[in-house]
Amino acid sequence: MFSAQTYQDRREILKKSVSNGILLFLGNIENPVNFEHNPYYFRQDSTYLYYFGIQEPRIAAIIDIDENKTIVFGDELSIDDIVWMGRQETLKEKSLKSGVQETQPYAELARYIVKAQTSGRKVHYLPPYQSSNKILLGDLLGIKIGELQPSVEMIRAIVKQRSIKEPQEIVQIEEAVNVSNEMHLLAMRLTQPGMKEYEIANAIQYLAANKECQMSYPPIVTINGGILHNHYRLNTMKDGDLFLNDSGAETAMGYAGDLTRTFPVGKTFTTKQKDMYEVVLNAFNQAQNLLKPGVRFKDIHLKAAQHLVEGLIDLGLMKGNPEDAVKNHAHTLFFQCGLGHMMGLDVHDMEDLGEQYIGYTEEEPKDTKTFGLKSLRLGKALKSGFVVTVEPGIYMIPELIDIWQAENRNADFINYDKVNEYRNFGGIRVEDDFLITDDNYRLLGNGLIKSVEDIENYRAEHLA
Amino acid sequence: MFSAQTYQDRREILKKSVSNGILLFLGNIENPVNFEHNPYYFRQDSTYLYYFGIQEPRIAAIIDIDENKTIVFGDELSIDDIVWMGRQETLKEKSLKSGVQETQPYAELARYIVKAQTSGRKVHYLPPYQSSNKILLGDLLGIKIGELQPSVEMIRAIVKQRSIKEPQEIVQIEEAVNVSNEMHLLAMRLTQPGMKEYEIANAIQYLAANKECQMSYPPIVTINGGILHNHYRLNTMKDGDLFLNDSGAETAMGYAGDLTRTFPVGKTFTTKQKDMYEVVLNAFNQAQNLLKPGVRFKDIHLKAAQHLVEGLIDLGLMKGNPEDAVKNHAHTLFFQCGLGHMMGLDVHDMEDLGEQYIGYTEEEPKDTKTFGLKSLRLGKALKSGFVVTVEPGIYMIPELIDIWQAENRNADFINYDKVNEYRNFGGIRVEDDFLITDDNYRLLGNGLIKSVEDIENYRAEHLA
Repeated sequence: MFSAQTYQDRREILKKSVSNGILLFLGNIENPVNFEHNPYYFRQDSTYLYYFGIQEPRIAAIIDIDENKTIVFGDELSIDDIVWMGRQETLKEKSLKSGVQETQPYAELARYIVKAQTSGRKVHYLPPYQSSNKILLGDLLGIKIGELQPSVEMIRAIVKQRSIKEPQEIVQIEEAVNVSNEMHLLAMRLTQPGMKEYEIANAIQYLAANKECQMSYPPIVTINGGILHNHYRLNTMKDGDLFLNDSGAETAMGYAGDLTRTFPVGKTFTTKQKDMYEVVLNAFNQAQNLLKPGVRFKDIHLKAAQHLVEGLIDLGLMKGNPEDAVKNHAHTLFFQCGLGHMMGLDVHDMEDLGEQYIGYTEEEPKDTKTFGLKSLRLGKALKSGFVVTVEPGIYMIPELIDIWQAENRNADFINYDKVNEYRNFGGIRVEDDFLITDDNYRLLGNGLIKSVEDIENYRAEHLA
Repeated sequence: MFSAQTYQDRREILKKSVSNGILLFLGNIENPVNFEHNPYYFRQDSTYLYYFGIQEPRIAAIIDIDENKTIVFGDELSIDDIVWMGRQETLKEKSLKSGVQETQPYAELARYIVKAQTSGRKVHYLPPYQSSNKILLGDLLGIKIGELQPSVEMIRAIVKQRSIKEPQEIVQIEEAVNVSNEMHLLAMRLTQPGMKEYEIANAIQYLAANKECQMSYPPIVTINGGILHNHYRLNTMKDGDLFLNDSGAETAMGYAGDLTRTFPVGKTFTTKQKDMYEVVLNAFNQAQNLLKPGVRFKDIHLKAAQHLVEGLIDLGLMKGNPEDAVKNHAHTLFFQCGLGHMMGLDVHDMEDLGEQYIGYTEEEPKDTKTFGLKSLRLGKALKSGFVVTVEPGIYMIPELIDIWQAENRNADFINYDKVNEYRNFGGIRVEDDFLITDDNYRLLGNGLIKSVEDIENYRAEHLA
């Protein structure tokens, strides 16, 4: 946990940015795997972590703006619990560490809410993502789950606050990134032709676990990098394959890292792989250099797309004017997704609160229709204190190529004959995490090799 | 998956043991960790696995007894999904492997249920444990979650069938037990004074993962074995401590192993530890020898308790007549829990369906009041084909000792002065998994060392 003062200060700021009513915070529960008493590992809700820092299942809290009160709700261990689970720090003690003086039994929460509602006060709450909290909110508020109406005022206030990372949060994020760096170096050392993909996934997870870190998301570790959300890990890796590793650690306090590297399963990139890799790496470097307060991330995304197009023109897969190609979304045959996203207590920071509030503004809402842009999680202007990922890529998706070619889509910009030579090429992505500073940006963590030369040298040192 | 015939046969048997109506089976979803698109690993519901074998989130199935139809409900991948996730085996293909000819879109399930209900037909369903399925059931049936009434007829029929393991299931369980054996040997090799408990937990998890196994439950790896449900893993282990490792693997098909061993962190048991260990091991051996069809597991539990008492009398912690001590529940100061439980597709097999149906009968229901017996998951007579754990233990719980002593509880049987010398002793448990055969029992798996001599020799070979 951070200091009690930290949580108090955060709550004070939040209080001032919501006009009135009660702010309701629900923690997460231990989710059952195959029966109630066999749970997945516990992960506290990120907003709860941010304002209260208490890592315990089945607790809640309210900040009562009208009455200027903060209460943590939850049940202390009974003597029966202590017999089974041992003596532990009490909720009261944990709450004091969060600067909260008042705790009440969990059952009191319902009474508090009902009382507030009957006196006509507003109860603000956030969009629930775990089903248990959907049920709980419905019960607390006496309405159907389908009728829940999260408070936009509360969401906006929280997003505003959590978007700007405190220095102590940056320390946490860099810790996560540095563990992630080690995970990626380990993958580059271990990978050998003949191994299964899951062996790498397991090894990096083991490394992180020994540093008391969870995975911040299910790792993508695959020789089929062209498949964007690929969690199949049973392939045998062979010489000539490209291995894509998109994985990151989460610190014990809940902060995420998120990195991607693509490297050859054998000793070196083939010429074709190397050329394509350089295209992605150039787009990455160009995008990185554009990071700075005031610049719209959507514009950086489009610039990166243009650099990808220029590279693909050089390789003969595209043609025509790069700027026009991007305007016509021709690049989305190869780069179907977004350049990056916010990162913090969640790998897609605050995604549970709604992408339109995190990545966009009322004035410039998200383009939810256009292929490519509809997958861009962050579009708005950067601010000092934002933490973002930059992750351009090129992905060859046979099914998509066939659809486009059948329609002759963007034929002015795409050389389909050449593209088809690459249809089973797979995918390449390079991803790092950045802090937006007052002037421009700072790479988070100690840095991880990414040039062709560095990767090939590292692989040569470690290949059997 | 097993053969299509297997699943067909299982469903045929089930169909014949429920009189009429529709049997509804809900698969599990991918549960979100901290936002909707960041899920925990997927685990299919065990009953769904048993009757359909399909490992895919957000599917359901019905067996319509009245109309003699079986349908799997779920959505095939759209071209959008294929772009992001790659081409995969279709639900239709998976269903055929399960012997089901008919698949329908997920949305059709609601229509099917409504239609059946409006024509007055009975819809049987099981108790939901995941909140998402509570919501889904409420929606499908048009009732409040609190008003759900799972079908006892369906539960009884399933419990009857799943309780008797098929030979091919035994093969799976033995695979799980053998991986679990390896996990335990690894723990015995790795453990060294100065290490943290979580390092052992991580190592055994890594070993299992490389054999494509999950943990069948969150491992208990602790130097405080007296705490029964201990998931704190940050202690540093030191010479003189006893290390309790309660952990098991789950095969890719979902079958569980569940083993416990207790061994010294240093090279050898202390005399005190050795004496206590022999008491537990003797109770274990005596209990094992009683396993056979027709014998009530509750009686074996009480016999094991009596052997524990006899040992504790020898050590001076208890006194009086052992049989009387057990009748008065005096052993529950040291052995607060049950001797074992059913095991199969769940480590506590079918616990989601209700303990009263799995472990007890209508004629001899569970004793839910008496301390000790209320924690015994299995009480009824054993049958050939059952798979059960046997896991006696002695646990020193300071909080419990203080309560009993303050009340002078069972003072005729307990030497509180002596007990207090052991108050910080911790705990010891020995656990193996057994198949009940026609004549008696068979230890599952290749066997794992458990005598003091074997453990000390193994430790001596591997200690730094």
